[in-house]
Amino acid sequence: MQADSIDANALRSGALTRTLSRFVASTQWRDLPAAVRNEAKRSLVNYFAVALAAAHDPTLDKAVTVYGRFRADDSATLIGRSERTDMLNAAALNAMSANVYDFDDTHIPTIIHPTAPVAAALFALAESHAISGEGLLLAFVLGVEVECRIGNAVSPEHYQRGWHITSTCGVFGAAAAVAKARGLDEQAIVWALGNASVQTGGLVETLGTMSKSISVGNAARNGLLAALLAEDGFSGPDAPLEGERGFLRVAATKPAWHALTRELGHEWELLKNTYKPYPCGVVLNPVIDACLDLRRDARWSFDDIEQIELTGHPLLRERTDRPGVRTGRESQVSAQHAVAVVLSRGKAGLEEFSDAAVADPSLRALAGRLRFIDDASWPVESAQVAIVLRSGERIEHRVHAARGSLAAPLANVELADKLHQLAAYGRSRVDAQALSDRLWKFETEHDAAAVMRVARARGLD
Amino acid sequence: MQADSIDANALRSGALTRTLSRFVASTQWRDLPAAVRNEAKRSLVNYFAVALAAAHDPTLDKAVTVYGRFRADDSATLIGRSERTDMLNAAALNAMSANVYDFDDTHIPTIIHPTAPVAAALFALAESHAISGEGLLLAFVLGVEVECRIGNAVSPEHYQRGWHITSTCGVFGAAAAVAKARGLDEQAIVWALGNASVQTGGLVETLGTMSKSISVGNAARNGLLAALLAEDGFSGPDAPLEGERGFLRVAATKPAWHALTRELGHEWELLKNTYKPYPCGVVLNPVIDACLDLRRDARWSFDDIEQIELTGHPLLRERTDRPGVRTGRESQVSAQHAVAVVLSRGKAGLEEFSDAAVADPSLRALAGRLRFIDDASWPVESAQVAIVLRSGERIEHRVHAARGSLAAPLANVELADKLHQLAAYGRSRVDAQALSDRLWKFETEHDAAAVMRVARARGLD
Repeated sequence: MQADSIDANALRSGALTRTLSRFVASTQWRDLPAAVRNEAKRSLVNYFAVALAAAHDPTLDKAVTVYGRFRADDSATLIGRSERTDMLNAAALNAMSANVYDFDDTHIPTIIHPTAPVAAALFALAESHAISGEGLLLAFVLGVEVECRIGNAVSPEHYQRGWHITSTCGVFGAAAAVAKARGLDEQAIVWALGNASVQTGGLVETLGTMSKSISVGNAARNGLLAALLAEDGFSGPDAPLEGERGFLRVAATKPAWHALTRELGHEWELLKNTYKPYPCGVVLNPVIDACLDLRRDARWSFDDIEQIELTGHPLLRERTDRPGVRTGRESQVSAQHAVAVVLSRGKAGLEEFSDAAVADPSLRALAGRLRFIDDASWPVESAQVAIVLRSGERIEHRVHAARGSLAAPLANVELADKLHQLAAYGRSRVDAQALSDRLWKFETEHDAAAVMRVARARGLD
Repeated sequence: MQADSIDANALRSGALTRTLSRFVASTQWRDLPAAVRNEAKRSLVNYFAVALAAAHDPTLDKAVTVYGRFRADDSATLIGRSERTDMLNAAALNAMSANVYDFDDTHIPTIIHPTAPVAAALFALAESHAISGEGLLLAFVLGVEVECRIGNAVSPEHYQRGWHITSTCGVFGAAAAVAKARGLDEQAIVWALGNASVQTGGLVETLGTMSKSISVGNAARNGLLAALLAEDGFSGPDAPLEGERGFLRVAATKPAWHALTRELGHEWELLKNTYKPYPCGVVLNPVIDACLDLRRDARWSFDDIEQIELTGHPLLRERTDRPGVRTGRESQVSAQHAVAVVLSRGKAGLEEFSDAAVADPSLRALAGRLRFIDDASWPVESAQVAIVLRSGERIEHRVHAARGSLAAPLANVELADKLHQLAAYGRSRVDAQALSDRLWKFETEHDAAAVMRVARARGLD
């Protein structure tokens, strides 16, 4: 269906929802290009990495306690933890831990974090209903496709207005993925999307607070529930997305209808997915790259620094000029902190953006020495850092495409490293190597849930 | 806080959310005017009536089956049914049954159905945590106050755009009510509202489908969960309602900020609540009243009717000119069906707006004989029905204020009748008299949950 053929009748009748649903119902593993299959596995390696990092974060501890009072059984694993819970709770809690640090993946056109809601729902399902690795990967790819196409159709207005797009679109992705994994037909997938369409909460206002995690968890949990309801014949409207009072029209003033179905099966949203090398706002990535490179230069030491000049797109300054941050979370979007901590320590992991790191007085002292130089001709994935020493010497490093951008994606080995490092950070005693090994050949796995048995905290079998 | 004193700083700092939360935390039973206490009980009588009617509706049967797979325990009652479930599921499922026929109450300024989300959450809580009748009524009043004030602040744009306002605002009402019932302090109530603010799904597009019930259930369930999380210290933003990316700004282009707090404690939203005498769109109420009055006239019989003239506000025609309806649900907004069935049978209950009633050929034959006469000077709660007989005789009846409107509210005895009739309709073998007796003196009840023991299906103790 092309943009110019979308008329009012097609919208009213639900032609777009039906096309998407038919695509989900009919697409097979053999239809997925090799690059898409590969990206799915990369997304999952990154998913387990970030979920393991946050497994014992205070937000998760509290949520596991309260949600745990309402668990029907112990069929499902909490990544990196020893408690067990039921399918719906596991979907919610694992999506929360994968997203709580905003260190998960980013779909570039929408800034949706696509994997957390979809993968958490699918793995929770897999622990009760047999799915192969191949089957889960296929369902995952299709869930992300639906989630991100809906996101494309309401972007950029939807997020700018204040909707937390990972939550609001994630529920559709989880519903479509679970519907595929359960083998639902076209009509039931339309219902699953309808059942998802009434569960689209999430606000940007809550970023940086525990509340945010509720809606990310809901996206996974409620998408899963939406599909299970549809499987039992719980029916919805014909046009939950494009109808007169459907999701797209409440989510955006002028939805891009064609984004839902254009080049379906030819363009894959998962190929626009990226993975963060550092737990920071993405505009800081090239700055951190440059600082890490500067650290490898032997000509200077931290105490020699007289001034630092940061050159980049004005967005860099607008988003990250924050000299007086007080919490680890704030430091993730502070150029002053990022530059100081990376030049000082030569690392940019979660520890470098913690409350403890922020409290380091030597890092705070550097903040006043940093100067932004705007240059609107630079792309946002590039930046230059120059240090001017007390001696007057100037050393600069320019990064053209930040690590982790679409132009310079993290290598598989870097993603595996991230998994190792974050598993260690999260202190969950999971065998990161075994987990990584299984994920890289996940399409050969007979039972997708086997991965979850590796991902739970050890020593409690 | 007055409208003109609400500046940008107050919005950013969360002054409105804090004022509302303080009001919820500090208001006591003695602060409630007698009329408000009374209206709370009337709302609950109506709540149990409509929930009993739908207890075995197919939507509920399916939801009880699927949700029942994920129940942690059997601590809570499903109104009119024999199964038991856990607190969160009971909140969801009882809110669904109270709302599924749209026969529940209506807050006039917003068309929110206020009671279903709030009462369902509170009674589910009460079955696990001791609350008195007085305590539940107080929490209910405050929950409805928060729910409807938020609704006022985003109306009419929010619903017109396509958001199902009962769902999107109901979650705040349930959160505030449960927070009060649990005795949370001002700060924790701010958090509860923040935890609710990320769970505001629901679409008008889904009206008439099963999907709609999911979001009404979620409003109760997730509001309850939001408060329980806050009680455990799960924290949210300072300004979930009025912040730059908070609920009011995503929900409406120009929120009416002052609606949140103006005359708080002096004007009570519950006093703007109404109860439907008929299971139809409210604009049909005066038409049905007129037809019932005409039936009492002995001068004509159904087969004598040559023509019917319906005079009223143009909205009556716009909303209800539907001659060819095919389902009971559609018939609830069809003037042709309503006039025919009421003139023919002299009743206007759920059976008269069922699939079976719609299929009656003698009723369908009358549709072509109905003519609308618009008169924009008439208020929507009035209408005139004139029948012209084959003899040429004309008999008309005009209704100035429909039964169930704010100007002609249902009497307590009529609400009790509704409870009896709908309990019978739902075939749930509940002692409607005992239930009604308890509710009318609910403030004297030591244990609010005692009512739920009466409201469950009998014969299974």
